[in-house]
Amino acid sequence: VATTDVLAYQLIRRKRDGESLEPGELAGFLRSFHDGAVPDYQMAALLMAIYFRGMSPSELRTLVQVIIESGRVVDFAGEPGSRVDKHSTGGVGDKVSLVLAPLAACVGVQVPMMSGRGLGHSGGTVDKLESIPGLRMDLSLETFRSQVLELGLALISQTQEIAPLDGRLYSLRDVTATVESIPLMASSIMSKKIAEGIDALVLDIKVGDGAFLPEEERALELARTMIAIGEEYGRGVVALLTAMDRPLGRAIGNALEVAEAVDALRGGGPPDLRDVSIALTAEMMVLGRVVASVAEGKERAAAALDDGRALDRFRRVVEAQGGDARVLDDLDRLPRAPIRRTVVAERAGRVLSMATRSLGEAAVTLGAGRAALGESVDPRVGFVLAVGVGEAVAAGQPLCEVHAADEASAERAVEAVRTAVTIGTGDAGLRPLLSHRVTAAGVEILA
Amino acid sequence: VATTDVLAYQLIRRKRDGESLEPGELAGFLRSFHDGAVPDYQMAALLMAIYFRGMSPSELRTLVQVIIESGRVVDFAGEPGSRVDKHSTGGVGDKVSLVLAPLAACVGVQVPMMSGRGLGHSGGTVDKLESIPGLRMDLSLETFRSQVLELGLALISQTQEIAPLDGRLYSLRDVTATVESIPLMASSIMSKKIAEGIDALVLDIKVGDGAFLPEEERALELARTMIAIGEEYGRGVVALLTAMDRPLGRAIGNALEVAEAVDALRGGGPPDLRDVSIALTAEMMVLGRVVASVAEGKERAAAALDDGRALDRFRRVVEAQGGDARVLDDLDRLPRAPIRRTVVAERAGRVLSMATRSLGEAAVTLGAGRAALGESVDPRVGFVLAVGVGEAVAAGQPLCEVHAADEASAERAVEAVRTAVTIGTGDAGLRPLLSHRVTAAGVEILA
Repeated sequence: VATTDVLAYQLIRRKRDGESLEPGELAGFLRSFHDGAVPDYQMAALLMAIYFRGMSPSELRTLVQVIIESGRVVDFAGEPGSRVDKHSTGGVGDKVSLVLAPLAACVGVQVPMMSGRGLGHSGGTVDKLESIPGLRMDLSLETFRSQVLELGLALISQTQEIAPLDGRLYSLRDVTATVESIPLMASSIMSKKIAEGIDALVLDIKVGDGAFLPEEERALELARTMIAIGEEYGRGVVALLTAMDRPLGRAIGNALEVAEAVDALRGGGPPDLRDVSIALTAEMMVLGRVVASVAEGKERAAAALDDGRALDRFRRVVEAQGGDARVLDDLDRLPRAPIRRTVVAERAGRVLSMATRSLGEAAVTLGAGRAALGESVDPRVGFVLAVGVGEAVAAGQPLCEVHAADEASAERAVEAVRTAVTIGTGDAGLRPLLSHRVTAAGVEILA
Repeated sequence: VATTDVLAYQLIRRKRDGESLEPGELAGFLRSFHDGAVPDYQMAALLMAIYFRGMSPSELRTLVQVIIESGRVVDFAGEPGSRVDKHSTGGVGDKVSLVLAPLAACVGVQVPMMSGRGLGHSGGTVDKLESIPGLRMDLSLETFRSQVLELGLALISQTQEIAPLDGRLYSLRDVTATVESIPLMASSIMSKKIAEGIDALVLDIKVGDGAFLPEEERALELARTMIAIGEEYGRGVVALLTAMDRPLGRAIGNALEVAEAVDALRGGGPPDLRDVSIALTAEMMVLGRVVASVAEGKERAAAALDDGRALDRFRRVVEAQGGDARVLDDLDRLPRAPIRRTVVAERAGRVLSMATRSLGEAAVTLGAGRAALGESVDPRVGFVLAVGVGEAVAAGQPLCEVHAADEASAERAVEAVRTAVTIGTGDAGLRPLLSHRVTAAGVEILA
């Protein structure tokens, strides 16, 4: 049903006044927007009204359904195995997907992973993976599907074939300050995941200064909203709240993060990256009915990192997608920045905090991310932290290595790191790395 | 200062989060919207955020100032006398301007009256006056100014020369459900009035089912907001809250309302129309320093209706603006509808209520108003009520005469009147005709 100007007005008005729109009404509005009959300014007004009023379960379901139906749906019906993906709300140094995807695939979960590019202070998986020379992520949906079935993993970048309405809505939300709406975020993520063919989904919801939704309560609300949508669609959803009050791991920047992820796939790497990757993979294994318990999943996932199976699976996927798999054995083949500068501690003490969002923004300024859609990124640049938050340092001890394209940007980045890192005495007061586990049954405090 | 896309986003976000924008920031956003640099969808999002968050006094002042500066300002500086206008929030059968404007002019207040067309269930002064054959309301601002000084009254329709930004904002609000925002309404009205050259303003804020803001509390908030803007600009503002839980007077429809207004200018007409017109005129006289008290103003205004001075002043203004003043002596010269139908009471009892908004909407359906901007109106059609709310009726007694362009629309209107009028036993529970008087000093309960 097409929505006329007058009807669109009435629907905006009713939403503004806190009413829940009927499925047919909201679907008509959305489809008419997608067709171009409802103009951007009416959708912008509706989105802002939704920001303030929220969405009812029925509205949420309608929004997800119309977004799914705006594009193609990858259909795995009748195929053996379970398809489980992971979604992260994004953070600084979050390269978990690069570790978790091949890890989950090699222990028996099929991972149809569609990823985005970085925007703002947080990086994107597509940008990171494209540091690997030759790797193609613009697979056709047919190739994507068959590779998931064959290798247990395909890595694809977001395509306008899947949920194109979400792309149009996101572009508008991005310029109208309506991104940070829990129901709009939840429906955007869930519709794309359902369309990519998942049976279940694991959420990594970051909490803390470097997260998109820094507050725990909002993170929990997002988790509950996505779980509710999953229940409507018969998709199991489990969410873990993980710490983003400091960067994850030590590397920030695309090629630098690939190198760190490969370290983790070799059984090494920073403990926090390994722990989060294993915890999330174990949840995927439970949801995919590969194991009966999270504990069993963790054990098997750890073993697959340590014995090389995860790295091997990554190698096969990289090769299948045209990438130069030699980088996995020789990380020096990754793009390297010409300028390196070491930031040292100006005083002895404990690293009490790192302004995580600021570090992410400093990485964008170096060229590792983009401030606006469509900008290109420099795979080489970023930071490698030499210490973690909570560790003691001596005066003059290296805190961080800056990888930069030129002296001027290196200088700015050094300053940004100095400003971001606080050294003092006392307790760093960090969040637990894994703090909450949210399922349809409720919230479990992990630490 | 131009506002870029990114800056616009930040301002929308801060407004969304309840911050007050700095004058330079908000002014930049508004000017960039007016110039076309900020697109409609960003303004729509800001307007909806303002709907939910309101505006600070500083933001309100900035909005009014930028709207004023977007166009020309009529300057009466140094001219003798005081310019005082009246604004009504609009209702059903509200032809007060037609009585009050010549009345105020003939007792010594200069009235620079810029009016709008009707939209939705409430009529517009321009549509009503254009029922008078030949009357031109598209005066140049120069003619407008000199006629105000010469005759004490000029009647002009809204022009893009005055406050064009308001026109752009209103068009967008009208389709994005952001019309009913107190600060946006107040700033829209006040900026146009200040630009038309007033020294002071009297507000007629309608309350009840047929009003734009039916609730008393919202009406009082609008009054207070407009008084506060007036204080910023050194313009005295007084508001009267008047009843719109029933139509004002007996006539609804353009030529029919002109006829009723002429009756009032002859010293006759319905008592409620006369009382409201005199009360508002008396406030204009006090604000214009023509009299020292409202009581004195009422006395002098009543006399000017009864002795023919008000009608004489209207005649001179109609003639000056090219209208056929013979209609004022022979109301049969007004456009007349070909079809008349009488609606009679189906039972005896008391008229307990008339669904006022519904009657207004039925008049639009007859052709007396417009559902969308740009539609033309039929000056001939409408209703003349034969009884008022609260009056006793016998079965078969006429309730209303329908004036229609054709049989089919007459039939629909008859049904609409039957549905709108409730006859029964008990008390009608009407609002006092004049309930509150609001000034900078506070609220005075009148009845």
